[in-house]
Amino acid sequence: VLLPYGVDDAGHVVVAWRDEVLDLSRAEGLDVSRDVFTAGSLNPYMALGPQAWALTRRQLAAAIADQPGAARRPAGAVRLVRPWEVGDFTDFYSSRQHVEAMGRMLRPDEDPLPPAWLHLPIGYHGRSGTVIVSGEPVFRPSGIRPSGIGPGADGPEYGPTGRLDAEVELGFVVGEPVARGHTLTAAEAEGHIFGLVILNDWSARDIQAFEYRPLGPFLGKSFATSISPWVVPMAALDRFRIDGPVQDPAPAPYLKVAEPRNVDVRLQLSVNNTVISTTSSDSLYWSPAQQLAHLTANGAGVLVGDLFATGAISGSTPGTEGSLMEAGGGSRWLADGDVVTIEGWCGSESIGSVTAEVRP
Amino acid sequence: VLLPYGVDDAGHVVVAWRDEVLDLSRAEGLDVSRDVFTAGSLNPYMALGPQAWALTRRQLAAAIADQPGAARRPAGAVRLVRPWEVGDFTDFYSSRQHVEAMGRMLRPDEDPLPPAWLHLPIGYHGRSGTVIVSGEPVFRPSGIRPSGIGPGADGPEYGPTGRLDAEVELGFVVGEPVARGHTLTAAEAEGHIFGLVILNDWSARDIQAFEYRPLGPFLGKSFATSISPWVVPMAALDRFRIDGPVQDPAPAPYLKVAEPRNVDVRLQLSVNNTVISTTSSDSLYWSPAQQLAHLTANGAGVLVGDLFATGAISGSTPGTEGSLMEAGGGSRWLADGDVVTIEGWCGSESIGSVTAEVRP
Repeated sequence: VLLPYGVDDAGHVVVAWRDEVLDLSRAEGLDVSRDVFTAGSLNPYMALGPQAWALTRRQLAAAIADQPGAARRPAGAVRLVRPWEVGDFTDFYSSRQHVEAMGRMLRPDEDPLPPAWLHLPIGYHGRSGTVIVSGEPVFRPSGIRPSGIGPGADGPEYGPTGRLDAEVELGFVVGEPVARGHTLTAAEAEGHIFGLVILNDWSARDIQAFEYRPLGPFLGKSFATSISPWVVPMAALDRFRIDGPVQDPAPAPYLKVAEPRNVDVRLQLSVNNTVISTTSSDSLYWSPAQQLAHLTANGAGVLVGDLFATGAISGSTPGTEGSLMEAGGGSRWLADGDVVTIEGWCGSESIGSVTAEVRP
Repeated sequence: VLLPYGVDDAGHVVVAWRDEVLDLSRAEGLDVSRDVFTAGSLNPYMALGPQAWALTRRQLAAAIADQPGAARRPAGAVRLVRPWEVGDFTDFYSSRQHVEAMGRMLRPDEDPLPPAWLHLPIGYHGRSGTVIVSGEPVFRPSGIRPSGIGPGADGPEYGPTGRLDAEVELGFVVGEPVARGHTLTAAEAEGHIFGLVILNDWSARDIQAFEYRPLGPFLGKSFATSISPWVVPMAALDRFRIDGPVQDPAPAPYLKVAEPRNVDVRLQLSVNNTVISTTSSDSLYWSPAQQLAHLTANGAGVLVGDLFATGAISGSTPGTEGSLMEAGGGSRWLADGDVVTIEGWCGSESIGSVTAEVRP
């Protein structure tokens, strides 16, 4: 069973099971101190480390059906908040199909694959202060961008984006830290990841296109990043692992990792309940453990609660695009009032969803 | 008087005055609750807002000479820690001389000024988890970079940077937050800045050059950012304000701000006590308030403790470079054991310094 973790609006750590939600601060049969389950976030629990996570998961699985009524509520009666305090937020760019599609649209005169892309997981730091939980609205951002499109366009001016986009991603939260000055290999990094969320990396493409040279995405991305409220433990996903694409040239030694390196999550992007695309994380070139190892390769270390994400996940055929921009060939964008939802499945089991309404 | 704020190794908020350090949790004549002065960081004090900062500053100035012995220590007896919990860290690119010098070296075939640069303050998010205080060592980062230089160089491989650099910057800490969905004009942003630190944005130029297309600096910068331990309140710097360069084209309305918009800080970069360059923040094209207004222009908001910095500050004549790379024409880099110091002055008064030793 998945037994994903969340935090309710009383600040208690909860677990989803069937159509119920279990309040761990009132649960029986757990050795972990109950204090960590009333802390308002998953951070103190994550900080206990992998052995405590594994023990709790074993004890939960054994006792899940026999919990007292005081610990159990129907899922519909529980309101969830952002499940942890996000430290640094890093977004990678690990889907080759997405990178090549964006490159062809944005830089038609260049090789769509950036020069370093096959050698390391390219990424950038995003804004952790605007990571929001599913259900919170997204306000259409304004910014400085061309006031029209094409050769007759006027100069740049400040105003609401006309090219609001969504990106289908997975996010991973660091549970076991690494001290500054130390590094991880990808094999070591596997055990430092606590769990997975579904993530929507909202993007204002006109603002982004104008501002991004040479320092990368900034205000075109920083206004909001939505995550699903349920954090799925990595331990629950072992049976959904799958080999990733062959890596050629061979990665540097610290990026080498055993197969199966990817998690096979099917992801569906919908706008107002109409399906736009269905894609899968099985095709990611750089795996989560490779991404985390790379984050530490310069000795920066990582902290409990740091979030890193895959970048938009695109397939290679129509209907598998990881963003509205790719699905619409650059001509379809989000309107005020649109409700955007990304849902994920492992096999036939839903692992959660992230949704938000676009507001003016 | 400057009366800069710091935090000592007992977690108490302290103020520097002449050759003494005053422990505010033991000071007399202050209306602010003493709890905020034993919190381990400046965040709870900053969160009280601009009226409390102004009141405390007035009361400190009135009572500074008459504090009891229990609140006073010689400056040399106090060990300072990182003065606040850093939220998001943003680094701008606001020195035209620096941008043009870097552009000529890194992108000799292009206009050295990026297309959007005169229209908005270009910046990127950095890693807040590696903001360290003066005195903490910096470990030479490794990364994937070309293993040689020039046409005969081998392919990229993982190893220690051969091009470790320092950048002379000022950093500013947000004390008054802005809620998500709201924006600030540059005029409004002035009052949200609590204070200023001197900042060294360590850079590994070979790692940075290989990785930065198209998402910007990442592991070439994220391994360490050093700040001075003393936070100088903006209120102490009013008499050192100076007009910035003329802005043409006229900035968007939200970026308009009254002169004098810049703070005039003279900054000196030294390696092993040998002066490399002396520059000044008077030449910055985008002022701190313009940078902060831009951070909120897309509705992202800012939180108490967010840090933003100017980018390297360079002048236009030899001896005024804001980085070792510029000063050495691309041929001088930091060696293990080097001690790098940046000191700042307003008029004849030192406003602090940031120093660190490079370790293997």
